[in-house]
Amino acid sequence: MTRLLVIGGSDAGISAGLRAHELDPAIRPLLVVADAYPNFSICGIPYHVSGEVGDWRTLAHRTRDDLGNAGLDLMLDTRALAIDPVERIVTVRTERGNTERLDYDQLVIGTGAVPVRPPIDGLADLGPAEGVHLLHTMDDTFALTSTLDGGATSAVIVGAGYIGLEMAEALRTRGLDVTLVEQLPQVLSTVDTTLGDLVAAELDTHGVTVHTGTTVQRVERHGTGLRVRGSNGFDRNTDLVLVVVGVRPDTALAETAGIALGARGAFAVDRGMRTSVDGIFAAGDCVHTYHRVLDSDTYLPLGTTAHKQGRVAGENALGGHRTFAGSLGTQVLKVFDLAIARTGLREHEAAAAGFQPATVDLSADDHKAYYPGARPIRLRITGDGRTGKLLGAQMTGHLDSAVHKRIDTFATALYHGMTVAEVEDLDLSYTPPLGSPFDAIQVATQAWTRQQRPATAPART
Amino acid sequence: MTRLLVIGGSDAGISAGLRAHELDPAIRPLLVVADAYPNFSICGIPYHVSGEVGDWRTLAHRTRDDLGNAGLDLMLDTRALAIDPVERIVTVRTERGNTERLDYDQLVIGTGAVPVRPPIDGLADLGPAEGVHLLHTMDDTFALTSTLDGGATSAVIVGAGYIGLEMAEALRTRGLDVTLVEQLPQVLSTVDTTLGDLVAAELDTHGVTVHTGTTVQRVERHGTGLRVRGSNGFDRNTDLVLVVVGVRPDTALAETAGIALGARGAFAVDRGMRTSVDGIFAAGDCVHTYHRVLDSDTYLPLGTTAHKQGRVAGENALGGHRTFAGSLGTQVLKVFDLAIARTGLREHEAAAAGFQPATVDLSADDHKAYYPGARPIRLRITGDGRTGKLLGAQMTGHLDSAVHKRIDTFATALYHGMTVAEVEDLDLSYTPPLGSPFDAIQVATQAWTRQQRPATAPART
Repeated sequence: MTRLLVIGGSDAGISAGLRAHELDPAIRPLLVVADAYPNFSICGIPYHVSGEVGDWRTLAHRTRDDLGNAGLDLMLDTRALAIDPVERIVTVRTERGNTERLDYDQLVIGTGAVPVRPPIDGLADLGPAEGVHLLHTMDDTFALTSTLDGGATSAVIVGAGYIGLEMAEALRTRGLDVTLVEQLPQVLSTVDTTLGDLVAAELDTHGVTVHTGTTVQRVERHGTGLRVRGSNGFDRNTDLVLVVVGVRPDTALAETAGIALGARGAFAVDRGMRTSVDGIFAAGDCVHTYHRVLDSDTYLPLGTTAHKQGRVAGENALGGHRTFAGSLGTQVLKVFDLAIARTGLREHEAAAAGFQPATVDLSADDHKAYYPGARPIRLRITGDGRTGKLLGAQMTGHLDSAVHKRIDTFATALYHGMTVAEVEDLDLSYTPPLGSPFDAIQVATQAWTRQQRPATAPART
Repeated sequence: MTRLLVIGGSDAGISAGLRAHELDPAIRPLLVVADAYPNFSICGIPYHVSGEVGDWRTLAHRTRDDLGNAGLDLMLDTRALAIDPVERIVTVRTERGNTERLDYDQLVIGTGAVPVRPPIDGLADLGPAEGVHLLHTMDDTFALTSTLDGGATSAVIVGAGYIGLEMAEALRTRGLDVTLVEQLPQVLSTVDTTLGDLVAAELDTHGVTVHTGTTVQRVERHGTGLRVRGSNGFDRNTDLVLVVVGVRPDTALAETAGIALGARGAFAVDRGMRTSVDGIFAAGDCVHTYHRVLDSDTYLPLGTTAHKQGRVAGENALGGHRTFAGSLGTQVLKVFDLAIARTGLREHEAAAAGFQPATVDLSADDHKAYYPGARPIRLRITGDGRTGKLLGAQMTGHLDSAVHKRIDTFATALYHGMTVAEVEDLDLSYTPPLGSPFDAIQVATQAWTRQQRPATAPART
């Protein structure tokens, strides 16, 4: 029977193990988990920090018992140190500090990502004890909540990406005075400026102080607290500094095993999640990801993708022939009462990939204006001027405007390579309190098509 | 220049005219409109009756001025009496009672549907003056609100389909005592029983008295009000009776023009919305509709479809070659705090069409359970056991659970003929307050695939 070893106990590793056992109940994959928190939803950390999720244990997608019942054996607090791909042995250091050698027939690596440490003077000398935090694991979370429970009343967040924005909301929800500092000229640089501006306005409405175009240069102790200085004369005293400027793939094991690296230094894998080394698969935030619109590999660390890739890896580790369908970079973010979503490519990304992108930017109501409570959704649609194909969509709207599931229709359209014009043909649902005869997303694609006429207008004789 | 005549001023007719003018601004289509309310949202009538939409004028998708500016000429309160397809002349009776002959090069018929009058004793002798109403037009609406303004405090609604349910909510919202009577064993027979039961429970929660399996047999005056009697000893005194048991296509003009009829007696059209008569197109509730999953014609009167078909008719009337992509019967309904949605085929519909359908029925959370406010969505997924193809989906959930836009992902999947298993591969959006790493709809398709194993499980070696 196949001995399936998995390194990693987060989305990719767990999914791989579960899928393998699902396909062959006789197999009990062994998971080597670096900490004591297998199958935790790290996307949920901000909501525990905010106090909305009282008990951190509920952040587990599954309990340890659930995982055992689902056929997984776990070695917790155990670090993989090296892989011998010839002998098919993984050397680990266990919870007790012992070194053990685990043999495998097939190996799945799901080591995930690690936070990037930006070059800020003083950062290396400070840590949780002084109120300076990174945030990626449950242990990081406990360290942060400890600082908060210690009475922190102000925070400087370095980085206005997804986690920075979610944490700004979380810390405001806890009542802290929050300053968000971003090096780039806008918050949430993963969406276009017009949408980023709406996010900035939402932050302002909820009392978050935002400094864009500002590089944090130095963190130091100051009295009982901290002092943060940066470009543009930025200078702030605070109780807490949270550095969340992104992640990089954790590929520390690559060298020992001789695994080739790909985009952004992540493990290179094919669409079957096979690494360059026989018998070794990898999935999740540690691998580069096939992008379905780009038709090439990129680095897109997302939980949704990790789950899907993990299942592919688990199936193929058992000899299957499953292919990862590809990512579209579909994402949604809640910032206070606003939802921001995107899928596919933005204009500059599409241009860089050789498309001839064109974009429309408009607002459309989430439901018929005559019915009370209609709210505008801001949409940006990018299509290829040459082929008329949909390339990407971005949206912001109120949390109740179903932006998160409207983006899914675009994601499904992108999956199938639809033209922008064809989106109008989709038979989408309608009732006046919840939509329009042509949904907001179709109003947007119709606007794109009109803008492109005559190139993409339907043929006439 | 093409003289484009359109009979009908609702969704199909307006869409045809707008599309034609959009493609050729030199053309000003002439619309013959039977009443004084062109381009009104009849789907919005319940929300005016309820009082939520105060001014009925806002129910117009566009004002008369908007329509003029968009290139449409209108003859209001004008009825088309006959079509001479050889001379290409439509005879109409105008607002003043004159008969006029309008010539055309191309004609689009969008006469819509008329309410079905069930065989209830006494119904033919009673009308709005006595408090007995049908509901399809703005004039019907004014008659109904007149009865309500006259002090009606109780209502019996005959028919628990879409309009019956929306009107039950509307009249409860106005404070009436509402009794809903349905001949079939469940309310909302367009969805399966498990979902219909949830709708019945929602009606009960909000104080609507429901009698299913009950046929109304007689309506008569009783004192200053009305008495309604039916099977199972049903006997109720009431101030108002609303009969909403469905519609049939308005094809009164078919005979004069010799236009062939199709499914359910609707105008037969091809996917270019061409009738059997040269130079005559038809669209909307008066035509049969190409169903994309059935790959055949059926009768599915829906506003969304009427808009799409109207645009196809308008384009092709100008010599275009547009094809109607097909309906999937995608629908959503709000009943108090519940949304009920469907797309595609139900099991019995699929079986009748020669598929080998199998269905799963399950609940899945609208977002991660650890984040406050998670609510269950009830899903039913029907797929073909032979090919693994998705055939249809039904869902109910709270109004805030984005059921209406989650069904759209299924609709888009159906449009492309996806298998149920492939839905798992879609890159859908996720953040804990708004979803799950595998969205509820993917949890459902995974359950279907597991149920079907080994037939549709991915290949293994």
